[in-house]
Amino acid sequence: MIKRSEVRSAQERAARMLAQAAIAITNEEQKNIEVAEFGLGELEKTGLELVVYVNTDRYCAKELILFPRQTCPEHRHPHLGDAPGKMETFRCRWGQVWLYIAGETTPAHHGHPPSGSEAYYTVFHEIGLQPGEQFTIPPDTLHWFQAGEKGAIVSEFSSTSHDESDIFTDPRIRRLPEVSE
Amino acid sequence: MIKRSEVRSAQERAARMLAQAAIAITNEEQKNIEVAEFGLGELEKTGLELVVYVNTDRYCAKELILFPRQTCPEHRHPHLGDAPGKMETFRCRWGQVWLYIAGETTPAHHGHPPSGSEAYYTVFHEIGLQPGEQFTIPPDTLHWFQAGEKGAIVSEFSSTSHDESDIFTDPRIRRLPEVSE
Repeated sequence: MIKRSEVRSAQERAARMLAQAAIAITNEEQKNIEVAEFGLGELEKTGLELVVYVNTDRYCAKELILFPRQTCPEHRHPHLGDAPGKMETFRCRWGQVWLYIAGETTPAHHGHPPSGSEAYYTVFHEIGLQPGEQFTIPPDTLHWFQAGEKGAIVSEFSSTSHDESDIFTDPRIRRLPEVSE
Repeated sequence: MIKRSEVRSAQERAARMLAQAAIAITNEEQKNIEVAEFGLGELEKTGLELVVYVNTDRYCAKELILFPRQTCPEHRHPHLGDAPGKMETFRCRWGQVWLYIAGETTPAHHGHPPSGSEAYYTVFHEIGLQPGEQFTIPPDTLHWFQAGEKGAIVSEFSSTSHDESDIFTDPRIRRLPEVSE
């Protein structure tokens, strides 16, 4: 649960970061920036801000904005019936992001699970992305990501998004926002 | 046919425009900027520069760079067997672009077919895109586009690209580059 005033404040902060990165959005898009709080009540630590540019039955494109050290928690995009799970390409546009996927654990990795949620982070194969660098995550693969010290802006190019089907490692998480006045 | 030296010079110019727009690409991507000259021998007037970020069997994302008043000539993406033709979303990131699609002709439109090629431009329904504005072109729909006075950078989000299947109105056009030393 997140208060509407907190949503507005996060939207404004995300919009300022986009402006700093010279990424233009319309007023309408700014009003509709999605603030994913994941139901944990700690947006600064565990959360994600999104501008969904387009999501058709064939492809999807979003801009992801992460505040400094903000973390998008571990999840995967499962296969849905006969359709393969969502495939996504993360391209860092500004700042720095540490992406973790299933695979051999990277020694001395840079990102760390938010305190209190360590039990729900299980993959530690690190991929660091600076502006201009990208990585494609195969379907149904566990992953999480965390911004560096000044935050991050990441373009996500993908197959169709079905956010409501995402499977999170942490059973406390609610992907779809619940906003209170 | 285009000379390798012309390709390099166009790549450098496109890279400078990306830098001006604060869009980061890697050195490897810069070396591989695609210079589409369309076989007409007039790159400044009829041409397009592309950075292909990703093209999987599920989705595709590119950055399109257009020099001032440069035109991508009229074409469509046909259905391929049972698969629907390419659907694409153009999002203006920098500069200005005039997009023309099938539909009612816009009176006093801003873009004009390159001189000498007027016969091969048949659709004049205008959509003007400034930074932050976007438009989605349905499959198999004729379209062409032209940059404004200072050029344009446009993100293209789409279903899988099969450039070799594009159908151009102008029979002289060759989509795939032929480079000479």
